[in-house]
Amino acid sequence: MRDVTIIGIGQTPVGEHWHKSLRQLAGEAVSAALQDAGLERADALYVGNMLSGEIAAQEHLGALIADFVGLRGIEAYKVEAACCSGAAALRIGYIAVAGGLQDIVIVCGVEKMTDVLGRDTTAALALAGDGDYEAALGLSFVAINALLMRRYMHEYGVCHQDFAPFSVNAHRNGVGNPYAMFRWPITAQAFAQARMIADPINLLDSSPIADGAAAVVLCPTAQAGEFTNHAVRIRASATATDSVALHDRRDPLFLSAAYQSARKAYQQAGIRPQDLDLFELHDAFTIMVALSLEASGFAERGQGVRLAQEGEITLEGRIPICTMGGLKARGHPVGATGLYQVVEVVQQLRGQAGPNQIEGASLGMAQNIGGSGATVVTTILERAE
Amino acid sequence: MRDVTIIGIGQTPVGEHWHKSLRQLAGEAVSAALQDAGLERADALYVGNMLSGEIAAQEHLGALIADFVGLRGIEAYKVEAACCSGAAALRIGYIAVAGGLQDIVIVCGVEKMTDVLGRDTTAALALAGDGDYEAALGLSFVAINALLMRRYMHEYGVCHQDFAPFSVNAHRNGVGNPYAMFRWPITAQAFAQARMIADPINLLDSSPIADGAAAVVLCPTAQAGEFTNHAVRIRASATATDSVALHDRRDPLFLSAAYQSARKAYQQAGIRPQDLDLFELHDAFTIMVALSLEASGFAERGQGVRLAQEGEITLEGRIPICTMGGLKARGHPVGATGLYQVVEVVQQLRGQAGPNQIEGASLGMAQNIGGSGATVVTTILERAE
Repeated sequence: MRDVTIIGIGQTPVGEHWHKSLRQLAGEAVSAALQDAGLERADALYVGNMLSGEIAAQEHLGALIADFVGLRGIEAYKVEAACCSGAAALRIGYIAVAGGLQDIVIVCGVEKMTDVLGRDTTAALALAGDGDYEAALGLSFVAINALLMRRYMHEYGVCHQDFAPFSVNAHRNGVGNPYAMFRWPITAQAFAQARMIADPINLLDSSPIADGAAAVVLCPTAQAGEFTNHAVRIRASATATDSVALHDRRDPLFLSAAYQSARKAYQQAGIRPQDLDLFELHDAFTIMVALSLEASGFAERGQGVRLAQEGEITLEGRIPICTMGGLKARGHPVGATGLYQVVEVVQQLRGQAGPNQIEGASLGMAQNIGGSGATVVTTILERAE
Repeated sequence: MRDVTIIGIGQTPVGEHWHKSLRQLAGEAVSAALQDAGLERADALYVGNMLSGEIAAQEHLGALIADFVGLRGIEAYKVEAACCSGAAALRIGYIAVAGGLQDIVIVCGVEKMTDVLGRDTTAALALAGDGDYEAALGLSFVAINALLMRRYMHEYGVCHQDFAPFSVNAHRNGVGNPYAMFRWPITAQAFAQARMIADPINLLDSSPIADGAAAVVLCPTAQAGEFTNHAVRIRASATATDSVALHDRRDPLFLSAAYQSARKAYQQAGIRPQDLDLFELHDAFTIMVALSLEASGFAERGQGVRLAQEGEITLEGRIPICTMGGLKARGHPVGATGLYQVVEVVQQLRGQAGPNQIEGASLGMAQNIGGSGATVVTTILERAE
C-alpha cells in the first residue's frame, strides 16, 4: 500500500448560488484544486453528492463533471452516503491511490440545494434516514436530531443553553473565513432566543442548507514533491457504519460508527486524540457536536457540552473545532461538506487559514457523518515536513 | 496489485416485486451471494444504484443494506453512474481488493422501479442524460436513443427491421433463464408490428424497467481456493467516459467510451475480441447492441446489424450475446443491470447456465453502459482452471 498525499485544494464560497449550476460549482472547485496542484490532468474523478437527482434533476455526475472540466474520458463516478457523501468519495479516491490503481485522483464534493427541481429540500434530506421506518412516518431529519438532543438533555441533565458555545464558536470562526456563508458572530443570548425548528432544536442549533463545492487532488506521497511544496499527508482514512434508523441502535446517544472510525484512524496514524491540533467535526446540529466529541475520545459520555463551556474548543483551546466556521457558519452543502472539512484542515496545516490560523498546526482530523451517525469517515492529515 | 476473483454470485428474479422493498431485494441477492461463497461476513459493501432517491425515496443505501444483511459496521457506500451504476460499483470493489485495501468485498446492484414515491419513471431515467441541455428540453432517455437509431439507419442505409434479430435472440435466450422477466420467444413479425414508443424505437426495441438485485463476492485470487471450487477470475476491469450530452460528441454513432474501455480491457487481459466465448452487452435498446458490437471490435462501423442477420450472436454463433436474455428479456432494473450481466457471465463460465449453456465457455465479457454511452465499464472474466 502506498502513502497518499493531498497536493491541491479548491473550494467555492458556500451560499445561495442562484446564477450557477451544479456543474459550474463543481467545475470551479475542481479547476481550483488542479491549479493549486499545478496540474491539468488526472486519472480519475470521484464525486461526492447526495441530492443531485432529487433536487437538481441530474444524475451521472461523474462523466458530466469530468467532461465539463476538460477531462472527458477518465474514470468518473458519483459516490453517495447521505451527508457523508463527500468523505465517502474521498475514501474511494484514497483506496484507488493507496492501492496503486490510480495515480492522480480528483475528489470533489458538490451540492446544489437552491433551484429545487424535484422533491422539496426537507423531504429530500429525510432520505438520509430510513425511508420505510422514519421518513415515511413523517420524521424529518431535523426531527431525528431533535429526538437525540431531547434524550441527551434528559439523560445527562443538561439544558438547551449548554449547547450555545458550539454555535457561538462556529460563528466566531466563520467571520474569518472568506468562503463561509455566515460571516457574523452570534451571542449566547441570540442562541437562547432563536426561532424554534423542531423542539428542542432551534435555528441557531442548525447548520444552513446551501450550494457549494470543494475538491482535493491526491497522489502517491512519493510523487508529491513534483507538484507542491505544501504537501499534506493522509495519515489515516477509516470508516464505519451503523444502523440507519435511530430506533435500531442499542444506545442512540453513542455514535458507534464515529467511535469505530475514529479508533481505527488513531490506530492507523499511531496517535492519541490529544496529539491533534484541530478537529473539523460534523456540526450539522449542536447535538452532533457533543456526541462526536464524546465518540472520538475528547470527552466522557455526557461531558461534550462541558468541553465547550470550558473554552476548550475555541481556536485557543485544547482541541479547536469548526476552525473555519464548521457546518453551522461555513454552511452545509450536504454532499460537499466532507470535502470542505478536509480542505479546511489542509488550509490550517499549510498555514493558510488567515485570521483563524492555529499556530504551528501540524496534525488535524476531519470527521464526516452521514444520517444520524450511520456512515462515518474519519481522516487524519499531517503537514509534510 | 492483486489478482481478483469472484467467489459468490446471487440474484433475484427480475420483475415487478410489489411485495418487496428495495432493501429486501438487495438483501436477497447479497445473502445468496454470501451463501454461494460459503461466507457470513465481508469487509465492505459497494452498492450500485441509480434511482433509489428519485423513485424509492431512500438514499444512504450502503449503511442501510449492510445493516439489513447483518453486516452493520462494515464500509458501505452507494456508487452511481446512471445505467452503469452496477458495474461502477463492481469497479470500486475491484479497486479495493486489487489494491489490497479490502479482502472480502460484496458488490450489489439494486433497483426498485415499481412503487413510485417521487419523480415518475420516465422523468427519473432522463437524469441519465444531461439535465440542463437534454432533459430540460423534454428529451427523454428513449428519445435520445431514437435520435441515435434514426441517424444510424440514415447513415448506413439499414431499415428498422434489420434490428429484429437482436430482440428475437434476447427473447429466445430469456426462455431458459428462470430469473428473466420475459420468458417467451418473439418473432420478427411481432417486432415489426410492435407499438411505437419514440419513432423509430418500438416496444420490442426496448428493454423493460423492473425491480431486481444481483450481487457478487470478490476476494484476492490467492485466497479464492478457501471458499469455492467455482472460482471465476477478473482478467480485466476497465472504464472510460464520454460527454453525457449526445450533441457534445464529434460522432454520435461511435461509442468512444465503449471503444476505449473495451480496448483497455483487451490489453489488460492480453486477448483479442475473437478469443471471447460470450459477450453480455448493454442492450437497453436495439440500437445500443449494434453500436456496442461495433465499438467493442466485433463488427465494422455500420455492420453490427449484419452480425445479427448472419446468426453470429446466438448461443451457437461466433459471439453469443445476451445469453440469459439480455436487458431486453431478462429485464433492466437500471442500477442492478451491470451486476446481472456479470452474474450471468459467471454462470456460463461455471457451466451453470442450464439450457442456455455455451459448451466449454471459459472466457466472457460484460459491458455496462451509462446514459447513451457516457460511462462504460468493461469486465473480462475467465474460468479458473
